[in-house]
Order: sequence, then structure tokens, then C-alpha cells
Amino acid sequence: MSRLMKSLAIRLVHIGKTCYINRVIFTSCRLLKQDLSLGLSKLKAQKSSIYLDMADPEVEAVLAPLRSAVKEQELALTPKDNFDRNKLEDLLKQKFFYDQSFAIYGGVNGLYDFGPMGCAVKANLLDAWRNFFILEEQMLQVDCAMLTPEPVLVASGHVERFQDYMVKDMKTGECFRADHLIEAHLEKILADKKTQAEKKDEIRSLMPLIDGMSKDDMGATLKKYDMKSPITGNDISEPMEFNLMFATSIGPTGHMKGYLRPETAQGIFVNFKRLLEFHQGKLPFAGAQIGNSFRNEISPRSGLLRVREFTMAEIEHFCDPSNKDHPKFASVADLEVLLYSACNQMDGKPPEKKTIGDAVKSKLIANETLGYFMARIFLFMVKCGVDPKRLRFRQHLNNEMAHYACDCWDAETRTSYGWVECVGCADRSCYDLTQHTKATGTIDVVECAPQKGVLGKVFKKEAKAITDYLSNLAEDDVNNLEQKLKDIEEFVPSVIEPSFGIGRILYSIFEHNFAVREGDEQRTYLRLPPLIAPYKCSVDDSSGSIGRRYARTDAIAVPYGITIDFDSLKAPHTATLRERDSMKQIRAPIADLPELVRDLSQQRRSWEDVLNNYPLFEQQEASKN
Amino acid sequence: MSRLMKSLAIRLVHIGKTCYINRVIFTSCRLLKQDLSLGLSKLKAQKSSIYLDMADPEVEAVLAPLRSAVKEQELALTPKDNFDRNKLEDLLKQKFFYDQSFAIYGGVNGLYDFGPMGCAVKANLLDAWRNFFILEEQMLQVDCAMLTPEPVLVASGHVERFQDYMVKDMKTGECFRADHLIEAHLEKILADKKTQAEKKDEIRSLMPLIDGMSKDDMGATLKKYDMKSPITGNDISEPMEFNLMFATSIGPTGHMKGYLRPETAQGIFVNFKRLLEFHQGKLPFAGAQIGNSFRNEISPRSGLLRVREFTMAEIEHFCDPSNKDHPKFASVADLEVLLYSACNQMDGKPPEKKTIGDAVKSKLIANETLGYFMARIFLFMVKCGVDPKRLRFRQHLNNEMAHYACDCWDAETRTSYGWVECVGCADRSCYDLTQHTKATGTIDVVECAPQKGVLGKVFKKEAKAITDYLSNLAEDDVNNLEQKLKDIEEFVPSVIEPSFGIGRILYSIFEHNFAVREGDEQRTYLRLPPLIAPYKCSVDDSSGSIGRRYARTDAIAVPYGITIDFDSLKAPHTATLRERDSMKQIRAPIADLPELVRDLSQQRRSWEDVLNNYPLFEQQEASKN
Repeated sequence: MSRLMKSLAIRLVHIGKTCYINRVIFTSCRLLKQDLSLGLSKLKAQKSSIYLDMADPEVEAVLAPLRSAVKEQELALTPKDNFDRNKLEDLLKQKFFYDQSFAIYGGVNGLYDFGPMGCAVKANLLDAWRNFFILEEQMLQVDCAMLTPEPVLVASGHVERFQDYMVKDMKTGECFRADHLIEAHLEKILADKKTQAEKKDEIRSLMPLIDGMSKDDMGATLKKYDMKSPITGNDISEPMEFNLMFATSIGPTGHMKGYLRPETAQGIFVNFKRLLEFHQGKLPFAGAQIGNSFRNEISPRSGLLRVREFTMAEIEHFCDPSNKDHPKFASVADLEVLLYSACNQMDGKPPEKKTIGDAVKSKLIANETLGYFMARIFLFMVKCGVDPKRLRFRQHLNNEMAHYACDCWDAETRTSYGWVECVGCADRSCYDLTQHTKATGTIDVVECAPQKGVLGKVFKKEAKAITDYLSNLAEDDVNNLEQKLKDIEEFVPSVIEPSFGIGRILYSIFEHNFAVREGDEQRTYLRLPPLIAPYKCSVDDSSGSIGRRYARTDAIAVPYGITIDFDSLKAPHTATLRERDSMKQIRAPIADLPELVRDLSQQRRSWEDVLNNYPLFEQQEASKN
Repeated sequence: MSRLMKSLAIRLVHIGKTCYINRVIFTSCRLLKQDLSLGLSKLKAQKSSIYLDMADPEVEAVLAPLRSAVKEQELALTPKDNFDRNKLEDLLKQKFFYDQSFAIYGGVNGLYDFGPMGCAVKANLLDAWRNFFILEEQMLQVDCAMLTPEPVLVASGHVERFQDYMVKDMKTGECFRADHLIEAHLEKILADKKTQAEKKDEIRSLMPLIDGMSKDDMGATLKKYDMKSPITGNDISEPMEFNLMFATSIGPTGHMKGYLRPETAQGIFVNFKRLLEFHQGKLPFAGAQIGNSFRNEISPRSGLLRVREFTMAEIEHFCDPSNKDHPKFASVADLEVLLYSACNQMDGKPPEKKTIGDAVKSKLIANETLGYFMARIFLFMVKCGVDPKRLRFRQHLNNEMAHYACDCWDAETRTSYGWVECVGCADRSCYDLTQHTKATGTIDVVECAPQKGVLGKVFKKEAKAITDYLSNLAEDDVNNLEQKLKDIEEFVPSVIEPSFGIGRILYSIFEHNFAVREGDEQRTYLRLPPLIAPYKCSVDDSSGSIGRRYARTDAIAVPYGITIDFDSLKAPHTATLRERDSMKQIRAPIADLPELVRDLSQQRRSWEDVLNNYPLFEQQEASKN
């Protein structure tokens, strides 16, 4: 352990910013945190951009087995739900929720078209998002161009750094993502019974390092294990950088290079000044955008989870870097969520249930605003049908966190593909606005920050009026004042960014709500919450095969079904109402039904309550007839 | 006139398809139509792709002055509404409805970002569209990839034909759209007082030909009038083709060329088979899509009207080519709209008011389905705030209609930029599906079409059962039957396509609803219908400057405002409710207000009705205080 300490001590010298220190992570990080923070003030002065290299082989040698143990434990705890992905995919394809784009032309990997049912679910999900975030939190929505000129993405860092490493099959030219190829190859060796225990240990300690490998590391690993193309067995090239942005040319001259945006966030940042003005110059406020982004993945796989064109919903919450409290924090402080801290990941410990309040108090979550958004993300996901037991927040390790970020938590859902990042929630500090300011010189945020304590002592009763006056000065007046005084605070706002991958959330919802009727393997259906179900209610008459009709409406997730039968003709006119998941039916006056279905769909009334207030309709539902 | 006849007679020999004949257009086309249709059967056999060249100089020499007269008359009839576009643009910019994208980086022409107010209006407009078209008409919505591989757009004709001609400044390399440059140059000569009358006549007869000019025609015209770069006065190049699609490369190999879709329609066509299956194999049905498309305009201008990235809402209604009746046609037959037929355009006559029913009966509009959609377009536009007096349908002339189209009408709005195409409504015949079928061979539409007459005679009472059986056969069964019988009808469905440019509609709505308060030139506002207004109601207290607050909410089109005043404190508690356009206020019990505002916003109740039922609140609204 002392060796680890030493290795850490050497590295710390290079750390430049306070925010990284918070998250210095190694086996005994909890004990050491305090000591580290003592050293902080000394380090603050330095401005090195090198940050803690988490991929220290010595550290990893100790940690890898621990982490493997956690993964195994996790798998053991996974309920055996007999989930059959092929069945779900059949249903989604057959009812045209979504399917591969341009299939009649042979299809294009990583592109999907949504059909009528998928469109309706997606529209309902986005509507719910807009209500839950933009309207309830009074955010400022923008809808910006997807075509983006190069200088914007140079400033944001995407032109230089938004890349993966790939290798090519030397004969066919087929491309593979280097890290995926390495991982698959190593997994294959591990799974091979003939592999010796020593070799297995070596590989186990190598696996966690793949994410952080440099180009040279990858090249060395490919050579060491003599990796070939997994398709043809041909030799493969050295790893090479591949920028994931789709390039194009804007205008007819061919001189203006552009890209399809790789995220919607930049559109909000470049509109910061307009939004600030719209918000009458006051912080904090949040911009939000729903729209498509594009990433030219090297070899897309995993269905909707890794695609080349996808819908995102992003929030950029701008606030004073010195005050990241949130006025509504108390309303979510008691919410319990599953947190997988960076420490626990490194220590080989499982995630822990904690309230958001405790996590912020203990500084595990960096600040109230970040915690507030994590809670809102949790509530939104569960409302839309994500299983809370398969939802956790995983903290980024230092080697995966963007170098400017202070803290970052991914909302992950557990699916048959493993844990999937659905929402990223990051404190990006002042990076983005600073970058665009440097590139354009047009963003100026000047605010007069009166020192209330001093004013109070000097002006007593009049202090409030003076404070108000100073706080509301126009920018020009502040600039004038600045000429006269020297105690003006000038700052670039911090950004807290919750970023939602809509396709990944949708897929998680489909998987978490997929079900098979007991006793009938063929009868698969989706238990989507009424809020996002494509249709809320079917109306049928009881002639013909009502069982088959229910099976059809169940498959497209219709939560309620009204059936008109012979008894409906008699006064008082009644009909039956069936609920999809329980398959229970009640009989109710026809006049009651519209309001009943509306209240159920809007989750104003529970099905249990309806069952208690109307007579059960007992006829057995034949599952096949 | 006999010369014209002769010129026409010669040309008719080249006409291949019946649908063009309908629209053979010249000064006396009404009289001649019947004669022409007699010659039809003879021409049907021929399959020449050459169609009527409208740009016959002799014809044009006669028509040009007539058309100029119509234009002058149109302008004379235009009400002098003192519209000041700068003022509208100031308002839209200042309240951040929308503004140029990447302005802090110098901006990119033809790209716009929507701010909070613009987003809300756009979201409301799209919501209204989805309700009015997709839900009310039970259309099948899809949401398809924007990235499109090349073969799809080769099949659709876009790779070959989706182009404009451009010329380059020989020194600076700056590009201009050739037709725009020619038009501007000729208009300048026309406006010059020194230009001789003879020359003016020549130019007037040339102007209408610009749209249909070939590359060589343009080159000759540029030379003849010695045109130069309008910016620098430098020499310009010969005209050259410029494809308007943004090209990119999909995947890492660089071998899969792709484009950003130039329209959303192709996504619906390539999903035709899936949608047909989803619709249980039955025609007619309509697919619909809302989404962004991209066109690399050579030199974008006119604000939101000509942009490089824009939102479209498109419908593809698939139907039996031998039956284009519409079951709901009767519901719109009496609707009166302003129709500017191709004949009237060529005859130099103004548009005419007609009912949709009469227009279809007289074959002016090609069929009921096209007429039905034109009526629905009209109703939708007016519902969302387009001024019906500034809305007309203009029929395409032969030289502007796609060669495969049978009939096409543009819904045009009159704005300060002139008449603007907002919605195209075309009968595209079977072109699109045929093209994709040829390119892929995967779209097979086989339907058994029993000859009811024959079956009736043979089977009498049993005929219906047999007909039903035959009509509902699965595709495989039909194919089997086809082996046995030879009287099976095989056809490719026709497509009727209403295609909405959302940005152009939005801009028209802004212009048609822009107003200035009487007596206060600075107080500009937007009279948007509550349906699409960003917010429906403000709540204020009466302290401070209530007049200034009303001015602010008027500017962002808030239609209703509740004000709490001193009297609100007394029981029974009341407040005032103000309507934006009339500025009238009533006083109502606070308990009534939520429902009142909801009913007003959803247009379930009129403001007049409210005025009749509540006491007027008489306090004068100060416009400036």
C-alpha cells in the first residue's frame, strides 16, 4: 500500500485544479481524502493540465480482482427473469415500433426508422420530458441548427478530441473499433478453458485499462496477443484515430467546412448571451434543447443503444460558480437512489443506496444543483417506465471524465446488454463558455457583486436599497463603476449539464416492460405506463374473437380496453373496462367511462381504486381463440 | 393566334402522358381543351418524355404584357397596411423568437436558431399539425433517418436533378444563383428610366422564361446583357450545375457516400411495405413525417423563407390509381378558396374564388383526394393564424411541375417578400414507388381485384362471399392464385403528397399577425391565435407599471392577462381579465378564471361571449407609463 501512496504522491504534484482532488481515487481513498485536501492550497497555484492517471498498472494489479468479484456478485444478484431479447425484438419489429433504416436497400448499420407505434411512444416521452423539465423548471428552450461550422467545434474541442481508435482488416479494408476488438479478443481468451490461470490473471488486470489506453498502448496490446480480424482472420493495421463527426461542406464554394453536430449542447452555449438577455441578465437559468445529433460510429452494434443518428434532450444550467445551491433541493433531499461512487468502483465495493441529501452533505455528489438534477432524472425515468430496481447512478472515474469536469454521474439502466448509460449528469465548470469566449471574444458576463456585510456595516438601514441598486445595474453602468472601483467580481458561469439519450431510454423502457402471458409463450406484450403508451384505450364489441383482439392491443401496449357486449344494449347501458397488466375487467355505466379512462391514463386514479368502486366482470379471458 | 395554334400543334406530338394534356396552357386554353382531349387517345400510345415547352418565345411575346398587367393589378389591390418589415424583425430578434445561427462566430447564411418564444410557437404549430392531420385522419407517422445512403437518392432522382445553376465571381470565387442574378439584373434595367421602351418590352417578355431556362439559355442571357458580379463588378463564370444536397460519408471506410435528406418524403416511401403491412395490407392509407431536411442553397436570402436546414411536415397518401375519390370529400366541398389556375396565370387573368367541390367537378383540380387535402391545408393554415385573404392556391405550370406529376397546387401566402410557397400539394402518380421498386426490386404490391360484375352474374347470391374472400387473401395466396388465373390486377399505388414548409408558415403567421398599437409606433405586438401563442395567460398584480407589463406580454403574443388588484382582496374575490387584441378588460370571480382562460385558449368560447357575460372593467390602459 505504501507503494501506491508513493505513486499517488508523485502524481499529485501535477494536479492543477481543486475539483479533481475531490475525486482522487484509489483503494483507500476515503481515509486519505482529508490529507489530500490539506495539500490543496499548495497545489492551487499550479496550472498543469495533466490529471491523475488512473491506469497505473500497479494500482490496477491490486484492484482488478476486486472489481471482478463485484461484477460476479452483481450478476449473481441479477434476478433470473428469463428475458428473451429475440422475442422483444420480434415484437418491436412486427408492430413496427422501429426497424433498420433503408432495409430495402440492404440497410445501413446504426440508422433506425421509427414506425407509427415507436413515433407515438417517442412523442409521448418527449412531451413528458418537456413538461417535466422545461415547463416545470421554467427552462429556456432553443432549437438550433444541426449543421455546425468548424470553428465552433474547434473551440468545443470536438475537432481535436472527439475520436475513437480503429484498426482495418489489411485485405478487406473492414474497420473495427480498436477497444471493442481488444476487449472481445481478451474475453475469448478468458473464456477458453485451456488458458492458464496466470494468463487469466494477467488479462483480468488488463481489461479495466482498455478504456484509458493510448494509441501506442493499443498497438502494443494488439501485437502482444497477435490479434487478427475477427471476421476474416486477416492481419489488421496499427490503430489510427478516427474522428466521429460527419463532415460536410456548407455553401457552394467548398471553403466552409462544417459538421453535423455531435451533441445539442453547443447550440445552447453559442446562444448563451441571447438567453441571458432574455432572462433579463439574471443567473441562474437553464437552457434546454431537444433534437438530433450525429456520431459516425466505427462499427455500430447493440441496436438502438449505439447509433449514428439519435435524439437527445439536453439541459445546460448556468450558475454562479461560487454558489451551486439549489432553491428546490429540500424537495428531493429524502429521495433514495442507488449510487455507485468512483471510490466504490475502485475499491471493488458494490453500489450503495443513499438519499440525495446525504450524498450532497458528505460531498459525494459535488453540489446541490447536481444532486437536484440527479433526483429529477430518477423521478422522470421511473415515471416513464424505467424499473427503479434496474436504475443506478455511476460516478465517472477520473480517467473517463472530461478533463474540465468537476463531477459526473451517469444514470445507468440494467438491460440484457449490461448496464447502459442513458443520462449523463455533469458539472462542466466554466469550460464551454470559456472556450467560446476565447474563440470569439463576444461573451462578457459582468455582474456587480456587492459585499453585503461591508455595506451593512457602513450604510445600516440604507444598505438594502444600495445593494438592490448595485445588483440591478445595466452592464454599461457596471463597466463604468468598474472604472471607479476595483472590488468588482467578474466571472464566467459554471454549467451543470444533464444530457439524455432518448433512444437508450426508450430501449430500456421497452426491455423493462416486456412481458409474456403466463401459459402462453407466444403472447408477448408491453406493460408501458399509460403516460407513454401509444394509445390509451381501445373500444371493441364482443363479437368474434375478443381474446385475439386483446392480444393485439396488449402487444402495442394499449393499457385499457372498453368492450361493448349484449348487456350494453339494456338500460342502464354499461360496458366492460379491462386493464392490460392484470387482465381484470369491471363493468361500469357507459357514461362514466370517458372520465374513468382519462383519469386512469393521466395517473390521477389507480386501477385498484377503480376495482374497489365497480363490480368485477368475471368472464374468463381466453388467451387463444 | 393561328401561329400559336400551330406552334402548339407541333409540340403536342411530343406529349407522352395524359396528365399533361389536362394542363396544356396558352392564351385560349379554355376553348381548346376539349379539342385537345379528343386527340388524347392517339397520343396515349406514345411514350416520349419530352413535355410541353412553355417557354415558347412567340407565346411569351403575347402573354408577357398580360401577365404584367395582372401583377400590377394585384399590387394595386394590395391593402396599404403600412407593414414595416424591419419593425417585425426587431421584435422577433429582441424577444428571441429566432435569430441567425452562430452569430458570435460571424453567422452562417441560411441557418437560424429558435429561441424560447420561437420554440414554443413552433412546438404548438407542430402539435396542431399532428392533431389536425395525423390523429384526425389516422395517418401512420414515421420518424426516419436524415442520413441517407446515395442509392436511395439516385433512385428518387435527387442525385441527378436536384440542382440549381450557379455562376462564380472570376476573381473572388463568390457564388451566385444564376437565375437570381439574371432576374435582379433585368429588374435593374427595367427600373432604369433611361432604358428605351423597346428594350423594356424585350426584357418583360424574357422575365417569365428565367425559371425554365436551360444552362445554355442562361449562359446566352448572361452574355447578351453583359452581366457581372453584383457585388464586385468582376467578370463571372459560365453557369454550372450545383447539386443542393449536403454530401457526407457514412461509416469509417469512406466508401459509403451519403447525403442529408433534401425532403422527408423518401423515408416514407422506403417504408411503404412496412406501413402497408401495419395497415393490414389495405389501401388507401397515408404515411406522415415531421422532421428536418437540408438544402445547400447557393446564396440564401429572405430570412426564414430560404434556408439551408428546415423543418418539414409531409404526408404521402397512397391510393389506388384508378380511384382517387375521398370518403370525406363532401365535408369540404362547399369550402371557398382562392384558386390561381395555370390557365389564368397564362391567360393573364387573376385568381378566382371557387368552392373545392366545383373545382374538382370541372376537373380544374385533378381529383377528390387532391381537393380534400387542399381544403384541409386551407383550414389548418387559417386556424393557425394565416390571413385567409392573403392565402391562395397556385397551380403549377407545366414547365415547373415535376415531369411525373399529374397536378400540383402550392398554397401561397402573401408577405412583404411577395407570394411565398408554404405548402405543396401534388399528385405524384406512381413515380416514387416505381423508382424504388426498380432500384431494389423489393416492393411488391399484389392485390386481388375481383370483377364484381362477372362474379355477380355467375355466382348470384354467393357472389358477395366470394368477393370478400378474394379481397382478403394474403399476398402468398394471391400469388398462388395468380399462377392459376390470368385476370389479376397488379398495380403500383399513386401518391398524393401535401408537403408543409414549417418555417415559411411560421414566418407568414408572424407577418400576418404583426401589429402596432394606435398612437404608439414603438409598441409593436403579435396577435397570434391562442392555439399557437407561446403562453396563454399572464398573471400580474396591479402594482408598478401595469401598462409596461402589458406591452411586454403583448410583444410575445400572450393573449390573456389576469391582474390582481386592491379589489381582489375583498370578498367575493375577483380579478380582471384582459384580452390582448381589443385591450378590453372584464372583472370576474377568481374561481371562474382558470376555466375561462382554458376555454378561451382552446377556442371553445369567444371573447365576445365573455364580454357579454361579465362586467366590463373600464379603467383606461395607459400605453406608456
